[in-house]
Amino acid sequence: MTTVAGRGVDNSSVGQDMYQLMVDLFPICRSITGNGVRETLARISQHVTLEIHEVPSGTKVFDWEVPQEWNVWDAFILDEEGKKVVDFRENNLHLVGYSIPIDECVTLTDLQAHLHSLPEQPDAIPYVTSYYREYWGFCISHSKREGLREGKYRVLIDSELKNGHLTYGEYIIQGKTRQEVFLSTYICHPSMANNELSGPVLATFLAKWIASAPRKYTYRIVFVPETIGSITYLSKNLDVMRNNVICGFNISCVGTDREYSYVPSRYGNTFADKVALNVLKFKHPEFVRYSFLDRGSDERQYCSPGVDLPVVTLCRSKYGAYPEYHTSLDNLDLVTPQGLTGSYELLAECIQLLEGNIKPRIRCYGEPQLGKRGLYPELSAKNSGASVRDMMNLIAYADGSNDLIDISNTIGMPVWELYPIVDRLVRAGLFLNSDCE
Amino acid sequence: MTTVAGRGVDNSSVGQDMYQLMVDLFPICRSITGNGVRETLARISQHVTLEIHEVPSGTKVFDWEVPQEWNVWDAFILDEEGKKVVDFRENNLHLVGYSIPIDECVTLTDLQAHLHSLPEQPDAIPYVTSYYREYWGFCISHSKREGLREGKYRVLIDSELKNGHLTYGEYIIQGKTRQEVFLSTYICHPSMANNELSGPVLATFLAKWIASAPRKYTYRIVFVPETIGSITYLSKNLDVMRNNVICGFNISCVGTDREYSYVPSRYGNTFADKVALNVLKFKHPEFVRYSFLDRGSDERQYCSPGVDLPVVTLCRSKYGAYPEYHTSLDNLDLVTPQGLTGSYELLAECIQLLEGNIKPRIRCYGEPQLGKRGLYPELSAKNSGASVRDMMNLIAYADGSNDLIDISNTIGMPVWELYPIVDRLVRAGLFLNSDCE
Amino acid sequence: MTTVAGRGVDNSSVGQDMYQLMVDLFPICRSITGNGVRETLARISQHVTLEIHEVPSGTKVFDWEVPQEWNVWDAFILDEEGKKVVDFRENNLHLVGYSIPIDECVTLTDLQAHLHSLPEQPDAIPYVTSYYREYWGFCISHSKREGLREGKYRVLIDSELKNGHLTYGEYIIQGKTRQEVFLSTYICHPSMANNELSGPVLATFLAKWIASAPRKYTYRIVFVPETIGSITYLSKNLDVMRNNVICGFNISCVGTDREYSYVPSRYGNTFADKVALNVLKFKHPEFVRYSFLDRGSDERQYCSPGVDLPVVTLCRSKYGAYPEYHTSLDNLDLVTPQGLTGSYELLAECIQLLEGNIKPRIRCYGEPQLGKRGLYPELSAKNSGASVRDMMNLIAYADGSNDLIDISNTIGMPVWELYPIVDRLVRAGLFLNSDCE
Repeated sequence: MTTVAGRGVDNSSVGQDMYQLMVDLFPICRSITGNGVRETLARISQHVTLEIHEVPSGTKVFDWEVPQEWNVWDAFILDEEGKKVVDFRENNLHLVGYSIPIDECVTLTDLQAHLHSLPEQPDAIPYVTSYYREYWGFCISHSKREGLREGKYRVLIDSELKNGHLTYGEYIIQGKTRQEVFLSTYICHPSMANNELSGPVLATFLAKWIASAPRKYTYRIVFVPETIGSITYLSKNLDVMRNNVICGFNISCVGTDREYSYVPSRYGNTFADKVALNVLKFKHPEFVRYSFLDRGSDERQYCSPGVDLPVVTLCRSKYGAYPEYHTSLDNLDLVTPQGLTGSYELLAECIQLLEGNIKPRIRCYGEPQLGKRGLYPELSAKNSGASVRDMMNLIAYADGSNDLIDISNTIGMPVWELYPIVDRLVRAGLFLNSDCE
Repeated sequence: MTTVAGRGVDNSSVGQDMYQLMVDLFPICRSITGNGVRETLARISQHVTLEIHEVPSGTKVFDWEVPQEWNVWDAFILDEEGKKVVDFRENNLHLVGYSIPIDECVTLTDLQAHLHSLPEQPDAIPYVTSYYREYWGFCISHSKREGLREGKYRVLIDSELKNGHLTYGEYIIQGKTRQEVFLSTYICHPSMANNELSGPVLATFLAKWIASAPRKYTYRIVFVPETIGSITYLSKNLDVMRNNVICGFNISCVGTDREYSYVPSRYGNTFADKVALNVLKFKHPEFVRYSFLDRGSDERQYCSPGVDLPVVTLCRSKYGAYPEYHTSLDNLDLVTPQGLTGSYELLAECIQLLEGNIKPRIRCYGEPQLGKRGLYPELSAKNSGASVRDMMNLIAYADGSNDLIDISNTIGMPVWELYPIVDRLVRAGLFLNSDCE
Repeated sequence: MTTVAGRGVDNSSVGQDMYQLMVDLFPICRSITGNGVRETLARISQHVTLEIHEVPSGTKVFDWEVPQEWNVWDAFILDEEGKKVVDFRENNLHLVGYSIPIDECVTLTDLQAHLHSLPEQPDAIPYVTSYYREYWGFCISHSKREGLREGKYRVLIDSELKNGHLTYGEYIIQGKTRQEVFLSTYICHPSMANNELSGPVLATFLAKWIASAPRKYTYRIVFVPETIGSITYLSKNLDVMRNNVICGFNISCVGTDREYSYVPSRYGNTFADKVALNVLKFKHPEFVRYSFLDRGSDERQYCSPGVDLPVVTLCRSKYGAYPEYHTSLDNLDLVTPQGLTGSYELLAECIQLLEGNIKPRIRCYGEPQLGKRGLYPELSAKNSGASVRDMMNLIAYADGSNDLIDISNTIGMPVWELYPIVDRLVRAGLFLNSDCE
């Protein structure tokens, strides 16, 4: 296991811990409301103390309204022999999310109008929801669908749609300043792993690590249902967030051990973009750089006109860009402890960049005399300059107009290799210590 | 025949109409002044009601002075047998423009000093003028010139140079605002087709189309002699034009069915550049993008320092860039109804872009709920997002800082595909109707 | 021999003159202080009247302190037979710069700790100094070093390190304005030719040429020891320089006849960068464009944060980028009169660009009528435009926002080809003469 460069996070077990939490949460049937969300948040609260919020159905949230709460206890399809050909208890993806209750006998023809499958992925159960139109339906593998024989089928959905609440969790870690870093992930997907349990489990352990040390910035970490949840959250917190949030990350699809991916903010020019791009460039230069036109997660809300938060999305295999996406193939085999750890380290590195970012200003005119401070090889020989080159490059751009990320980009060194040099220059009195706090 | 996308211009006959007007105008001997210009403007006035302006010779216009008026009735060269070896009535290009009157017998050697031909295009009669130096001369094909035998020749030019007027036509179409779109073309070239009768005939029918519907902008359309005419026009109208003109097109060489061409404004950064580049990119992505260093038509005046109008030139085969340029080969075979129609549609599309350009601003925070407005498929399945993607992209950049052209460039969709989406969003109350007027 | 384009510098003998001065100065043992510097400056003063400054040891200069003065009279190593195996009088590179005095017998093993050689360049004596740590040492070729036999060696260094002065020369040429052009070169290297006697000899003759005519700008030309000398100079003159210097060139490594090189200022965006890049682009388009990260000469001080002077370094084979660098191979064979002349012309051209730079503004609206001023061929024929194209391009961008360098870059013509056109336009009254003074 690796450690985050330079600032000593011990990640030796975090990959396993994240994976184990995902295993625990996997069977729960989550949706945008309901007891599955509550149970998920309760288990996460065993790791970090979430404040749980319940927002009543019917509450106006921007252009939307909090929908009725949906709960489900059972759902299946019986054939004429009474055999369960589809069973929600076997895989909760079998049920279309927000299906209304039903208990009927239907012909195969009638049933077909309520079945969803993927001919191009015949063994996968697709993930389908119908939040805002009354409907019931089942999702099955296409191969099973093709095996259904003519006849009568009993369909039973023991669900309930009624006024209740939308539930989300919030965790605020107070830092030295009111300026905030915002982390968001979602807890509304049923039994899928990369999209989406990888986000909440990573956010949980990242929050734990953030809380383990004093921080310059305040951290606002939210576990919300996608879209309606982020809109609900924004509708209650937009003013304070617009004032305080300097950088945010939407955390989704962070569990595979495939490529790293970046979805920029609306114009790609926020501090979050700058932080993410710098870390990705040096740690994962082969990362996939998407356009905002490729967005699809809650950055859609956080970067919408009028909201305009500095938020980017960091992923491994991005939603919509891997074949298992939104099917039963997005399961515990697709996500690995190593994949989660890589994402965890990427985000931890971004946070360290944020926390350690300064705009250093060299305290003398001209180059400082490194020699008298023990920073320079006194004997000038043909190649002796090479060893101090990095320090001099850092100093050359430490003119008070560049932060460490700018300097890193300009001189081509990762920020984490600049930290020890900054430390030496502070100790030598060439940088003000106060710049570094 | 095609129609201009999206806004219903019926172009079914306009190509033939433009071509027919060109056939009618072709034989007239035009120059920068004189009765050929008057007759040309009179025939155009049968289609659109031009205001004809007559500016006296000697009038100071910026650094220039309106020259004497030139008219010509006949011109020829007779050989010793009395045979017309060169006859102006056969092709008015045979006479150097602004030739002074003469009736003399000269040797072939003396005559040679007044002959112009193109060795590299031996069958073409070149187009030559001498507006500002007293001179007479004839233009002939190089093959004919090489066949001239030693001997005496009688040269006769029945022309007149005297104080008179420079004539131009102006057509103002009042719109809802005082802001103006400026269209300019020239009517000073004798019998040539692409450069230049294509410009005036296109401008005539474009003006007719513009006048056929209410317009947001006022249109200032001028038919002037090149250089001295545009300078004369500017000297009389510069203040109002600098105040009002938001976009202008110089229309020249628009008749071939070869490539499309674009000559930018002086710095390539005006609204006219933005409009033209957007339309060209989506309609004719293979267009030729020239530099302002390649200019050569009246954009030379409209984009000169101190004048600084937002004007670009749109062409098919650009002046100076096709082999037939400024010769008798630039004739009615080079220009086609199809070629003219393509240019007509390009300019009409630019005008539609101008007229329909708005800076939309979405009226809610976060993404709107499309579903309750019937704008979204309620059933969320693996690929259902694709169909609303375009609408959401438009909304994402409808933040009040981008006009439709900016949004088109950002999201990679032509503006004319955005119009129906804008209409739906206005009807849904998500865009203010007033933004769209 | 060539002449600087357009403005008549006769360089016919300057290459030989510069080379001869280098031959004269070559044997002198220079360092950052001492009599070698004084003698070098004295000989330069035979060409241009330098003001000599002596700054006492111990003087605080920014983060530094003027060191003790070092002088040396003799230094050698004797073997057991009394044979001089290393002799400073044969090549002053044999002695490590600033070596303390010593007279001792040592074993070969002890001696080895004080020897410096280059295994990869076995015939070269390296150049080594130890200004700020007390040390003594000898530099020898690696092949000679490998031939040293076991035994006793007598090492003698007849040097002196004591409070004295740092010496530099300054030459101010008053121009019509207080705005300054700054030229800097260094006189602290012992017997090496490209780095560095080429800089001082070029600066000497360039200064002579500058002083030979009235100048718009004041010229501040300094001959300083590298690093400590430029820092000392800045510490005494920074305020006036920050107010007045508009452009500066650090002159180093200008003697080979290999490539031309350019090291930008810190952000590459000063007037000096603009001047240098324009001249290089047109005169030496194959020049090597380094980054500020490749810096290594006194641009390190002049472009440091807080100093921020508009200074670039122009070289032929740049310090650190040629194999002979900082060895005895950087000798009078490496540098040629032709190489020096090329650099001289490059810098003279930069100065001419500076001196002649104006922001012309055309005095009429629209294009001027060139014809009535004799600037245009009256007979307009197919290709006649080509000959006035350059003049019209210059006029098109003479809008008062561009200087001649901008115009040169935009229209793709060297500035020196613009001068005669500007002159014609001034004579024609189209440009104000006052713009050109």
